[in-house]
Amino acid sequence: MRQALHRLQIHTKHKGLVEITTQVSAWAERQKITAGLLTIFCRHTSASLLIQENADPDVRADLERFFDTIAPEDGKRYIHRTEGPDDMPAHIKAALTQTQLAIPVASGRLVLGTWQGIYLFEHRRAPHPREIVLHLLGE
Amino acid sequence: MRQALHRLQIHTKHKGLVEITTQVSAWAERQKITAGLLTIFCRHTSASLLIQENADPDVRADLERFFDTIAPEDGKRYIHRTEGPDDMPAHIKAALTQTQLAIPVASGRLVLGTWQGIYLFEHRRAPHPREIVLHLLGE
Amino acid sequence: MRQALHRLQIHTKHKGLVEITTQVSAWAERQKITAGLLTIFCRHTSASLLIQENADPDVRADLERFFDTIAPEDGKRYIHRTEGPDDMPAHIKAALTQTQLAIPVASGRLVLGTWQGIYLFEHRRAPHPREIVLHLLGE
Repeated sequence: MRQALHRLQIHTKHKGLVEITTQVSAWAERQKITAGLLTIFCRHTSASLLIQENADPDVRADLERFFDTIAPEDGKRYIHRTEGPDDMPAHIKAALTQTQLAIPVASGRLVLGTWQGIYLFEHRRAPHPREIVLHLLGE
Repeated sequence: MRQALHRLQIHTKHKGLVEITTQVSAWAERQKITAGLLTIFCRHTSASLLIQENADPDVRADLERFFDTIAPEDGKRYIHRTEGPDDMPAHIKAALTQTQLAIPVASGRLVLGTWQGIYLFEHRRAPHPREIVLHLLGE
Repeated sequence: MRQALHRLQIHTKHKGLVEITTQVSAWAERQKITAGLLTIFCRHTSASLLIQENADPDVRADLERFFDTIAPEDGKRYIHRTEGPDDMPAHIKAALTQTQLAIPVASGRLVLGTWQGIYLFEHRRAPHPREIVLHLLGE
């Protein structure tokens, strides 16, 4: 049993879902672990992680609109406003989605389903450098 | 330290929470791992996982109604409609719950609390074959 | 590769986010694991876990208010009312947040971001004894 750790840097451009399946899978497969567990950890509280459909881009657009509706940029709702109108909605969206994901590895590959993609969900309007930690354990 | 992997097939009949605690616990206990970590991964984006109370079935009914209210089958809200009126609500409900759960194992058993059950949450109206990957690591 | 398990007892006083970063980090660091994976598991269905900003307390107040708004203590909405008006909202809030978190360990420390804190989210009004299982795997 052995483990590997990697820090993946993603420069987001604006709000929305950024697919990172290729970078994550490629790194995991390079570790030559046949069976094990991959953990993906987002080191931020205004961006988060999500596994979602990677076929129809309309699904992403609808998901983004749903989260904008449930946590709108409406200053009157929030006390915390010093970091901009999109900051408190960002924390709420992060709380409703995932800071961390774990995906088993079998036959050297992530066991993702056919339509599953891994996404970094940027909740801020401005571009941000984001750091995702990848941890792989197995043999 | 060793690991075991299993693919659990669940045939859902309709929308709602399906308890899978017995199947998951039974498989985990058969691996004769005294201490370790169980990961449960759902290979779908219109079904998800949840740990919830398994005592009063009214809790499940109220949870299902809450998610139907927050993500209603209302075509006007969504661009993605080609797979039926229940498909985009399904993706939203999956985003709000879990694709993956991890549960420590101690003394050969999952450390679930007294009232905790593991559920597959089917979000589509029609019956679906669902595949859940179980990964156990420990000794 | 070795593992350690600990049961952390938290006595909550009322509804809201209780920071547990110090207790969790201190236990993890005492295990002298340089690299590995920490799993935090909440053994309850009316309390949950969350990683959120630990700088401005207004973020916590806004998060708590958001969850109170989305799952209000409104008896007419729920069938399950026998355990009090705050019980079904508690289950909904737990379903929308996390029962379990996993955080990689590198250089003997959790890889939490600068502003990330680990919180136990108490959803019941009355004080409750809560048990959190910590599982650390690594070397």
